[in-house]
Amino acid sequence: MSSSPSIITCKAAVAWGAGQPLVIEEVEVSPPQPQEIRIKVVATSLCGSDVNAWEFRNIFPRIFGHEAAGIVESVGEGVTEFKEGDHVLTLFMGECKRCRHCTSNKSNMCQALGWDRNGVMHSDQKTRFSIRGLPIYHYLGVSSFSEYAVVHSGCAAKVSPTVPLEKICILSCGVATGLGAAWNVADVSEGSTVAIFGLGTVGLSVAQGAKLRGASQVIGVDINPGKGEKVKDFGVNVFLNPKDYDEPIHEVIKRMTDGGADYCFECTGDTRVASTALQSCCDGWGMTVALGVPKANPEMTVHYGLLLTGRTLRGSAFGGWRPKSDMPSLVDMYLNKEIQVDEFVTHNLQFEEINRAFEMMKKGKCLRCVIHMPK
Amino acid sequence: MSSSPSIITCKAAVAWGAGQPLVIEEVEVSPPQPQEIRIKVVATSLCGSDVNAWEFRNIFPRIFGHEAAGIVESVGEGVTEFKEGDHVLTLFMGECKRCRHCTSNKSNMCQALGWDRNGVMHSDQKTRFSIRGLPIYHYLGVSSFSEYAVVHSGCAAKVSPTVPLEKICILSCGVATGLGAAWNVADVSEGSTVAIFGLGTVGLSVAQGAKLRGASQVIGVDINPGKGEKVKDFGVNVFLNPKDYDEPIHEVIKRMTDGGADYCFECTGDTRVASTALQSCCDGWGMTVALGVPKANPEMTVHYGLLLTGRTLRGSAFGGWRPKSDMPSLVDMYLNKEIQVDEFVTHNLQFEEINRAFEMMKKGKCLRCVIHMPK
Repeated sequence: MSSSPSIITCKAAVAWGAGQPLVIEEVEVSPPQPQEIRIKVVATSLCGSDVNAWEFRNIFPRIFGHEAAGIVESVGEGVTEFKEGDHVLTLFMGECKRCRHCTSNKSNMCQALGWDRNGVMHSDQKTRFSIRGLPIYHYLGVSSFSEYAVVHSGCAAKVSPTVPLEKICILSCGVATGLGAAWNVADVSEGSTVAIFGLGTVGLSVAQGAKLRGASQVIGVDINPGKGEKVKDFGVNVFLNPKDYDEPIHEVIKRMTDGGADYCFECTGDTRVASTALQSCCDGWGMTVALGVPKANPEMTVHYGLLLTGRTLRGSAFGGWRPKSDMPSLVDMYLNKEIQVDEFVTHNLQFEEINRAFEMMKKGKCLRCVIHMPK
Repeated sequence: MSSSPSIITCKAAVAWGAGQPLVIEEVEVSPPQPQEIRIKVVATSLCGSDVNAWEFRNIFPRIFGHEAAGIVESVGEGVTEFKEGDHVLTLFMGECKRCRHCTSNKSNMCQALGWDRNGVMHSDQKTRFSIRGLPIYHYLGVSSFSEYAVVHSGCAAKVSPTVPLEKICILSCGVATGLGAAWNVADVSEGSTVAIFGLGTVGLSVAQGAKLRGASQVIGVDINPGKGEKVKDFGVNVFLNPKDYDEPIHEVIKRMTDGGADYCFECTGDTRVASTALQSCCDGWGMTVALGVPKANPEMTVHYGLLLTGRTLRGSAFGGWRPKSDMPSLVDMYLNKEIQVDEFVTHNLQFEEINRAFEMMKKGKCLRCVIHMPK
């Protein structure tokens, strides 16, 4: 064991207010507390949730970033699973492996290390970042837009040192969420029809998951006409832009699928689109999976008759994966070339260019921007 | 084969307008058309859906009644499955056994013989009842509040002549719907916690189904304080009347179940209650099943966060049973005393007393009233 870790001063991209460009600041990073690890971030990508929280939430100053990979710099008291030098993926939802959810084998909503909504660490409700004594809040317990980040040891998954960290960082949210929604939540069956609303990384990962399951038709819906070109590479057979139709898009989908798709996926975060998705799936067994995190109105309207005629509306976080338990197998699938991951990376940027990534994501001009941290 | 059946003139309880007392009239009943059968109704019970449609729908004059058992009086062209004298249960949803739903093995929403919403027969969109040439509309393709009724042969299930028809008639909607919701739709597991909203025949049949699956706690919720006494006989362990609490009832349920019930069932038809049910089930794996047919507002509000944290909202009709295929096994369970059925019958009435049944159902003063037709 090395001596007790001390405070690190390093660069981090700090959001000082809603929608304001991030500022790269010198921040102090506390040593990891009991059961925590401090990571030197190697690569981190930008997810739509970061952008939404930056634009619409009110916890500031804050360091965003939750899709990341890095190398353990130091470990806190009681950590036996990790040691300095280990390569890890960060996890925005953790696993304590002891609560009734972790032990249920049917939930990934760990009661101890679930989604953090308050910008503080799980254990003591405090921050590990500060600037001259001013606390800087976390995001989803990760905050990877910093050279160093402290996470709970339950919020990291060890990976082999041979795995390219700058490639796999995007597995730790968007790609896994989409694949898991298709596989774990909907359990898409061979020969089925699928409609996906919102063709960002999450939606296209659903498409990939559906294609790998042998879906006969994968319909992709997006109001961004620029999405139409590349989506076929990820398994979308038919691209629909609702703006191109005079009738409601659910009527178009019902006609194309003989009454409605077997599975619909809402990946935009617009709850009105979720209602449309439910209208687009078939009676009897149609299922709509809600994945998109709402930007604004958190309520959706469900026509009750759609339920009574046999439809299911199901939600999930992180595609139903148990983050720590299941991520290693997804990394293996990537290494074995069983899933496309690299194809989602449309831009590689240096840390100083991080505001470009935010702008591109906001405008729908990218899938994943990987941000390479200073070596 | 007997000679072609002719028109029958018999007594039927006709609803002439919304909420108006039924009038027992002489009606003409056409012979069964191709693939149809004409039944002498022996016993029929009153379901909440009859009362709702009587109060709130606008198809009149009409003959209600859809839970019934009787004896085949004559058969139409092409009917080989039934013959005069066969004992049958009527089915308000049929099975053609040929459409993509019937052949899917995962749906009971037959495309040919599904829920009739227009008061006419499936095959020709006409009625089989008339009074001096005035068509009298059907209800759910059954209309059993008549001495004779014509149904599609796909909307009846044959039962042994030894089965007491006046006992099993209530199996053909409410009791089966509740049992099926617990078994087929939710698939309630041993040791689980269950909350049921609305303790009529459907809700109490859910309770029975949950108890038979070994649920550890069955919470029954109803605003009718009179429900509190009898419900324990059907498996409800705890009775909650929301009027007895200052806090929202979902908070009470969450406290009683360590975070929320594993399964919730909405059996009232009030879409606001459906929202409460979803709030009352746990994150991670909680499921709410919608069964109640809405009287008024057909839209429910779903807080999206409840979905994203792993809840499922699922609806079904007739408890997911394939009506014609599955009813014989339920009848067998009744005969083998594996399920309680007789206990739901709170009143036995003669046909002339049918308006009393409507009044009692409207006021929540009964579970099932069995109406015995003239011999």
